[in-house]
Amino acid sequence: MYTISDYLLDLLNYLNVKDVLGVPGDYNLSFLDHITRRSDMKWRGNMNELNAAYMADGYARQNGMAVLVTTFGVGELSAVNGLSGSQAEKVPVLEIVGTPTLAAQYDQKLIHHSLGDGNFEHFQNVHKELGFKVEAITKDDAISEINQVVKYVYENKQPGYLALPVDLTEMPVNPIFKQLIPSLFRNKNEPHDHLQNIEAISNQLKNSHHPILIIGEDVQRFHLQDVVRNFIINNDIPFADMIESKGIIDETLPQFIGTYNGSLSKDLTNQLINKSDLILLLGAILTDANTGGFTQSFNSQNTIDINAKRINFYSKIINYNEQNGFVNLIKIISQTSLSQSFPKGPHDSINNKLPVPSDKPITQDFYTSAMSNFIQSDDTVIAEQGTSLFALEQIKFPANVKFICQPLWSSIGFSFPATLGSQLANPKRRNVLSIGEGSLLMTIQEMGFAVKYDLKPIIFVIDNHGYSVERVIHGMHEPYNDVPALNYSLIPEAFGAKKNQYNYFDVRTEKELLMAMKSIENNSSQLSIVRVSMAASDAPEDLKEFGKIIAKQNKG
Amino acid sequence: MYTISDYLLDLLNYLNVKDVLGVPGDYNLSFLDHITRRSDMKWRGNMNELNAAYMADGYARQNGMAVLVTTFGVGELSAVNGLSGSQAEKVPVLEIVGTPTLAAQYDQKLIHHSLGDGNFEHFQNVHKELGFKVEAITKDDAISEINQVVKYVYENKQPGYLALPVDLTEMPVNPIFKQLIPSLFRNKNEPHDHLQNIEAISNQLKNSHHPILIIGEDVQRFHLQDVVRNFIINNDIPFADMIESKGIIDETLPQFIGTYNGSLSKDLTNQLINKSDLILLLGAILTDANTGGFTQSFNSQNTIDINAKRINFYSKIINYNEQNGFVNLIKIISQTSLSQSFPKGPHDSINNKLPVPSDKPITQDFYTSAMSNFIQSDDTVIAEQGTSLFALEQIKFPANVKFICQPLWSSIGFSFPATLGSQLANPKRRNVLSIGEGSLLMTIQEMGFAVKYDLKPIIFVIDNHGYSVERVIHGMHEPYNDVPALNYSLIPEAFGAKKNQYNYFDVRTEKELLMAMKSIENNSSQLSIVRVSMAASDAPEDLKEFGKIIAKQNKG
Repeated sequence: MYTISDYLLDLLNYLNVKDVLGVPGDYNLSFLDHITRRSDMKWRGNMNELNAAYMADGYARQNGMAVLVTTFGVGELSAVNGLSGSQAEKVPVLEIVGTPTLAAQYDQKLIHHSLGDGNFEHFQNVHKELGFKVEAITKDDAISEINQVVKYVYENKQPGYLALPVDLTEMPVNPIFKQLIPSLFRNKNEPHDHLQNIEAISNQLKNSHHPILIIGEDVQRFHLQDVVRNFIINNDIPFADMIESKGIIDETLPQFIGTYNGSLSKDLTNQLINKSDLILLLGAILTDANTGGFTQSFNSQNTIDINAKRINFYSKIINYNEQNGFVNLIKIISQTSLSQSFPKGPHDSINNKLPVPSDKPITQDFYTSAMSNFIQSDDTVIAEQGTSLFALEQIKFPANVKFICQPLWSSIGFSFPATLGSQLANPKRRNVLSIGEGSLLMTIQEMGFAVKYDLKPIIFVIDNHGYSVERVIHGMHEPYNDVPALNYSLIPEAFGAKKNQYNYFDVRTEKELLMAMKSIENNSSQLSIVRVSMAASDAPEDLKEFGKIIAKQNKG
Repeated sequence: MYTISDYLLDLLNYLNVKDVLGVPGDYNLSFLDHITRRSDMKWRGNMNELNAAYMADGYARQNGMAVLVTTFGVGELSAVNGLSGSQAEKVPVLEIVGTPTLAAQYDQKLIHHSLGDGNFEHFQNVHKELGFKVEAITKDDAISEINQVVKYVYENKQPGYLALPVDLTEMPVNPIFKQLIPSLFRNKNEPHDHLQNIEAISNQLKNSHHPILIIGEDVQRFHLQDVVRNFIINNDIPFADMIESKGIIDETLPQFIGTYNGSLSKDLTNQLINKSDLILLLGAILTDANTGGFTQSFNSQNTIDINAKRINFYSKIINYNEQNGFVNLIKIISQTSLSQSFPKGPHDSINNKLPVPSDKPITQDFYTSAMSNFIQSDDTVIAEQGTSLFALEQIKFPANVKFICQPLWSSIGFSFPATLGSQLANPKRRNVLSIGEGSLLMTIQEMGFAVKYDLKPIIFVIDNHGYSVERVIHGMHEPYNDVPALNYSLIPEAFGAKKNQYNYFDVRTEKELLMAMKSIENNSSQLSIVRVSMAASDAPEDLKEFGKIIAKQNKG
């Protein structure tokens, strides 16, 4: 018998979802049966739901789409911070929530996992409030409800939420719907309604003398890297990326001018930006985290700002009237042929320093150099918010590095499960995580997941006695920024690893760090954990500056 | 200078809050300074916010009130499942959320921890939707906003939420407000407006031949144990408790007839309930979890049901018109003198079996016997939802045992942080936790908290290869009910414990379990962890029955 559960899974499988994350609960167990019976998808149980949501986010960034399953009330609310991160950072994650029977809901029963007030809509309303696409599956219109939400997630790169009542999981549906799945995603050749805008933008580009492209994350989310890359190369246009979009366009191209971050950018990058008569922002939103706390030097007088939500044409806001407005617009603009020749010169403002090691304790500066030497082409690099992110943003990435971070939502603890999700989505790609110990503690039980599913990321744990990102903002020596001192060497085995399943390195000096890195390069077939001891008060210079800016703003 | 932060802390301190839980974040750091500067309150940093909320719940159940501090967006959403548990289970927890500056909110800045849409009210709305009392502190009316929320939490035993903008933490307020704090909580002798109801209820009691009191959790939340206990003793009225209210009234009293749980109750308990011509429910709500899945045998024809929200007088719903309506009503009813003499006889239906150990593997049955022997007067006993709860509910508790569980909200992972919160609130009381390994994994990083603050609960970890509470409902042998196998012996040291800071026992046979218990009794001055191996398919009989009922209901 072909059921609604089978249809939902077929649809997700068509969109390349091969693994389903989440936590079992009595309202979703019968749905899980449909996963474990398949050969083309796998159930991957998480240790808790927040971790599942973070992991789904990492999986989706690597894979293009992810799904997690939770249970009513307790499960979905545990996951809601993770899904909100996907909302803020535009990541296509679907949450399927197993809910009580329709009868129990109709009768307002006082059942477990409810607030005991007979109201079963609170949790859906919570998810609506946060902007997710929400549908509760009904008997009468299940296929259409599922299609709407899944299409929305896939096409808008924003999270969706489907409530699946436990008594509907075995509801039969016509198998013909499976055959119709491909037709849901056929590209519609809608007439393009932005011809005027395209012409205006192209004209501005053609008339500019020093245009600069600044690349944002939407370029990657909507798979426009190649289109934009060709545009840059064909016309020899200088470009910058941002923290959120680092490495999306190959940073080794001669047109690359650096990673833009407001006043925290390298001098040369800032000089070039300041000289520009047209900043074309492609797929970015200007948050405090990617503008050095709103210290960007350009303004609406010289900026055309195009992202997935809208066009801002010299302060005039233009909304899209069609489904793929953003994608179509970028594709057409990228075909513009510019006849100008733009100033040549020293463009690249990032210089990876070659590390020269000593027996001294490891500083943030040395760590950054060592990482710049360690990261390779085709790596996925994941940076936790904090010292890790501010270290890695200074590095020039080799070609085809995928960078995962969360500069806007900035939920600490995100990056470890996200790394495992990314690694699960593509076990062959090398995943390199840099994370502080305070962040790792937040979600550390997913070490059990890494061990169980034999994932092999490389994890650098910066152990600097607490939340250094907070210290540089406020309370450098305050006890609230301390975290307990763990024995990291015991963590893998405590969470079930066999001795031959992992490498552990405890490094305190520069030489020890490089030796650990060399050893990992020679043997990357194991889960590797490097505990890097650093001083509590040490932080990348950019983070110290950013901390001062944030501290000042927080005083009001 | 006396600030709004100082006032808020003075108010909480007046209500006996001595410890503040939570996680630092840049929007709350300046508020935390006001805690670390005090000698009468302590900052207790958690490993993540969900754990902080669970821990606050346990602290409040032991202490009468608790507070946690989180940061905007990421922190508060991580905690929201925990606070929802306090809502469902009626526990007085206040969350203080550090938010961005008023200026940033007014200007709709795209700052970190926001969804990037310029709307700063999403998260407050989420908390309102869940029924919490929510206020955002403003410049003009800060004292009144704080008073409203804190009084609400304290008086209604329900969670509250205060948003504190980071630029207001240092706002000066008149120190006179501190002097006025006691006047906020003076008992008002409002005229009682339920005289008619009281007379009607008393008359029903006086005219009944076999009345039975069933005690619910509100009796404890509103500190009515002694009042109700005296009423029972003075009139020799038979009474039952429920899972949620177990041990609130001394189970060793001769009037005790057992722990009521619908058709899952002991035979004698059910016989007595069935004979009764008046069931007086005091402070209970009848959820699936405390009625054996809605299998109670009484109905509105013979039931008067009084809880903190309303009176249900033979199906007629009567709401309270005054603040302390419930408390006043119970106090007055408890003064009723009943002249009847109620049937004597074998009342008590719980027989703790004395464990006779062998070298056989430990069964759930043996574990229950052993626990009934281990639990002492004045213990706090905490049971995780699942096999632990269904084992412990079968035990007759000694006098003055405090029982903590979460039968309605049933969020697994709750009980470990809740135990630490309860232990923190009263370090002298012995705290005994029974938890499964799947639940412990959810929140295991708070082991770092236990070690850092040198807490010494006794923890029994039932290691039965996964979620047995799910197995008995659905999927007995399905892989989604498995959890990774941890090496529990390494967990304390992995999370920073010194070798002499804890006892660890790994027990597989009945004799080993009793020996571990004996050893702990002789040396309870250390954190103790007992890993109890059991079969995956074993479960307390009541849980197996409950599982069948739930499985049937979930089929719709």
